[in-house]
Amino acid sequence: MDRKQKEVRSLKFTHLDDKGKAQMVDISHKEQTDRIAKAYGRVKVSTDTYKSIKEGYGPKGDIFSVAKIAGIMAAKKTHELIPLCHPLSITHIDVDFRFNDEMCTVEITSTVKTTGQTGVEMEALVCATHVALTIYDMCKAIDKGIELGPFYLLEKEGGKSGRYERK
Amino acid sequence: MDRKQKEVRSLKFTHLDDKGKAQMVDISHKEQTDRIAKAYGRVKVSTDTYKSIKEGYGPKGDIFSVAKIAGIMAAKKTHELIPLCHPLSITHIDVDFRFNDEMCTVEITSTVKTTGQTGVEMEALVCATHVALTIYDMCKAIDKGIELGPFYLLEKEGGKSGRYERK
Amino acid sequence: MDRKQKEVRSLKFTHLDDKGKAQMVDISHKEQTDRIAKAYGRVKVSTDTYKSIKEGYGPKGDIFSVAKIAGIMAAKKTHELIPLCHPLSITHIDVDFRFNDEMCTVEITSTVKTTGQTGVEMEALVCATHVALTIYDMCKAIDKGIELGPFYLLEKEGGKSGRYERK
Amino acid sequence: MDRKQKEVRSLKFTHLDDKGKAQMVDISHKEQTDRIAKAYGRVKVSTDTYKSIKEGYGPKGDIFSVAKIAGIMAAKKTHELIPLCHPLSITHIDVDFRFNDEMCTVEITSTVKTTGQTGVEMEALVCATHVALTIYDMCKAIDKGIELGPFYLLEKEGGKSGRYERK
Amino acid sequence: MDRKQKEVRSLKFTHLDDKGKAQMVDISHKEQTDRIAKAYGRVKVSTDTYKSIKEGYGPKGDIFSVAKIAGIMAAKKTHELIPLCHPLSITHIDVDFRFNDEMCTVEITSTVKTTGQTGVEMEALVCATHVALTIYDMCKAIDKGIELGPFYLLEKEGGKSGRYERK
Amino acid sequence: MDRKQKEVRSLKFTHLDDKGKAQMVDISHKEQTDRIAKAYGRVKVSTDTYKSIKEGYGPKGDIFSVAKIAGIMAAKKTHELIPLCHPLSITHIDVDFRFNDEMCTVEITSTVKTTGQTGVEMEALVCATHVALTIYDMCKAIDKGIELGPFYLLEKEGGKSGRYERK
Repeated sequence: MDRKQKEVRSLKFTHLDDKGKAQMVDISHKEQTDRIAKAYGRVKVSTDTYKSIKEGYGPKGDIFSVAKIAGIMAAKKTHELIPLCHPLSITHIDVDFRFNDEMCTVEITSTVKTTGQTGVEMEALVCATHVALTIYDMCKAIDKGIELGPFYLLEKEGGKSGRYERK
Repeated sequence: MDRKQKEVRSLKFTHLDDKGKAQMVDISHKEQTDRIAKAYGRVKVSTDTYKSIKEGYGPKGDIFSVAKIAGIMAAKKTHELIPLCHPLSITHIDVDFRFNDEMCTVEITSTVKTTGQTGVEMEALVCATHVALTIYDMCKAIDKGIELGPFYLLEKEGGKSGRYERK
Repeated sequence: MDRKQKEVRSLKFTHLDDKGKAQMVDISHKEQTDRIAKAYGRVKVSTDTYKSIKEGYGPKGDIFSVAKIAGIMAAKKTHELIPLCHPLSITHIDVDFRFNDEMCTVEITSTVKTTGQTGVEMEALVCATHVALTIYDMCKAIDKGIELGPFYLLEKEGGKSGRYERK
Repeated sequence: MDRKQKEVRSLKFTHLDDKGKAQMVDISHKEQTDRIAKAYGRVKVSTDTYKSIKEGYGPKGDIFSVAKIAGIMAAKKTHELIPLCHPLSITHIDVDFRFNDEMCTVEITSTVKTTGQTGVEMEALVCATHVALTIYDMCKAIDKGIELGPFYLLEKEGGKSGRYERK
Repeated sequence: MDRKQKEVRSLKFTHLDDKGKAQMVDISHKEQTDRIAKAYGRVKVSTDTYKSIKEGYGPKGDIFSVAKIAGIMAAKKTHELIPLCHPLSITHIDVDFRFNDEMCTVEITSTVKTTGQTGVEMEALVCATHVALTIYDMCKAIDKGIELGPFYLLEKEGGKSGRYERK
Repeated sequence: MDRKQKEVRSLKFTHLDDKGKAQMVDISHKEQTDRIAKAYGRVKVSTDTYKSIKEGYGPKGDIFSVAKIAGIMAAKKTHELIPLCHPLSITHIDVDFRFNDEMCTVEITSTVKTTGQTGVEMEALVCATHVALTIYDMCKAIDKGIELGPFYLLEKEGGKSGRYERK
């Protein structure tokens, strides 16, 4: 291991051990606290697709119901999908949609809560990405150029590292 | 159902029936053909994180091995994650990484193959998003501002609709 | 093994071996044929609940969208839920609802198709039961007396045993 | 939203928001209490099938062992099957069978326990339905007219809403 | 990469690319053939435990029914458990037990069949290991010294590499 | 039930009821305590394979990264794989490898932690077996004679039965 690698190590990738190998973080000594995380994501579609999914079927359209359900169900599976995530007792998952007419984008906000020994950022991001993937799936027959993302953490609260809010 | 809605309908959302309700596409009469799809995705990290994951651990670093495995395993679960996707006999899944030093991004290309009655676009996108989510998970302790995306279809081939290539 | 047991054996439980032990049927020598199965199920709710779910939210109500999605997703997992079922390449799953005002029941018809070496009766029944369970879940806060069932096979077609239709 | 819809709303479907959209109930502020739920279900078979499964193989027959295991395993997956259910730390699942000779029915009672922030009604019902589906699967080769159900909640205890017992 | 590494490479780990990174084998150009694999496994228990599980409950004992079901269900999930395995249309899974009184061991033979583009060795081994793990689970309250294994492939047939039989 | 059977019963298989039928242990009245379990497993390969996986790719080789990830992910699914296991909030899973040059074996030690009402022996064993199965999968193209096992519990701590250490 050269000097460069040693410096890098000091950044403390909690998911890598001192040989650079992936590891699950040991949370057995962490306290159970109330935690919440919110993530953001976006689906960019063509003008025609945008009109169809917004105006044609309205905010009650099945696309968004199905996408929300897919996001909720995927978030519950986060620890099965992301190799080093811990299983958590999720107490709430929610999804909101906002339509941005100028950009022809559907904006997704996901919220996940737990009382546990680690946070739910990954659950919130898994939720948002699967909402987006499901919208993609339902629109792909009419629009192959759909773009998903960016996805990022909006805020989180709870745990030793405290509150984070994206600027 | 007003005129607007009717027009919209003519765009043929194959995943919505004529009342706007979600439906699974009936592929029972489609032919089995060789199919391939490639998707693209991107993970944007801070300069420090970028250096760490690229230089510190090198292209053999565990982060990318773990992320690739997560992408492959998630792609195999596409039909469990995306509500209206069909189960498919996937014959190959691959993941490539490229480092873009100027942008501090890791670029992901996923490739999925099958011989079946429907395409593997969703499998390729599920793969790419889970690779990205896993990189996020492994770096989130040192970088909370990571952005995932955009994700989109690069190309697909096979089936009645033929070849698609993103311009 | 006494005489009675021997007689019973002659009924040919394909899922029991000659010692009465459960076994998976060997379908390796069966032909691939197009197969379809339809199942029926019913959810009986109180008069108040019935009005709410039928009139209050209408046929576009989210309850039925969510229940349909749950049924489709569960049907795809049939071989994981029912121990001796084979994994199958399902090509279509559909769910229909009918409201019976006199009985205060929601009637469910599920349809599943495959091209494979064994039938999809179980998939159709798993679909119908999970649609019903999901309706139950969404109404249980206002109605604890809900009854699910009966569930039964309506018809099936394909395979050596041919067409079956319930009288 | 017309008057009728507003009235309906007052019934408080906890699984629907004020626009009639499905939502996961937020249980983050609920207390952890000991909870138990019992559900009932029934499988009606032909006279011949009834004799076979009861007398031919007796109460130790593999059919009921396999069906019980299937019910227990499905109950543990309730939150994956029913879209808006929360993951729970289940502490016990049990299944009992009773044979009703006059009706040619197998009666199933399932019991599920947890210490958690929400109840286990759905787990008990998922258990009972999967026990029944598995019996169906094992008998379907000799009896296509089998009927599953009714299934309903027998009793529950724990949580703010207290004890419920079916009359 | 030094000479030693190059030599090693020539052994053709199909699951590693030329940089030593894990990869899924591309089976898209392989033919569909009938395939079968048999695996062996063993559970060694104390003399007391051995007597209990063999004599006390007999060959019809629930332990072996439950263990067999667990093996069958796990084998169907092989592609979800072993990262680089392909999903396969399994057509048959079977499990046999033999009691070795001298060694106080239960011997497990698992058999898996498919018609597909790759073999079912892993499915057979996953089956045998889960049968053994389940026996362990059911006996661990009375015997903490149980040993599982060895597990190995007995034979396989089908595919380009042809028949293999363990000597 | 004869005398022999009665004696056997007195050994207290907690996973069998008094009729010899499998049952899930009721842990609802057990206390939540910190628990840890360590399991051991071994993979025996040919001399050539041993050199390849040890020297050719070194301890940083992808085989062991992928195998470790597979073990961690499988351990999180223990309650889905082993029929009578309870779902648990796992707080840590770790895997270590040791190379035994004389024996041409890779030795696996898995460690699992939880705070819960029952132990994590099964999780540790599921982890070790899946690490071994994954190594097998990645080497099977060059070595069909690989042997997995023995696997056994090394030690456990926590809960009423206290500390256990294998002699």
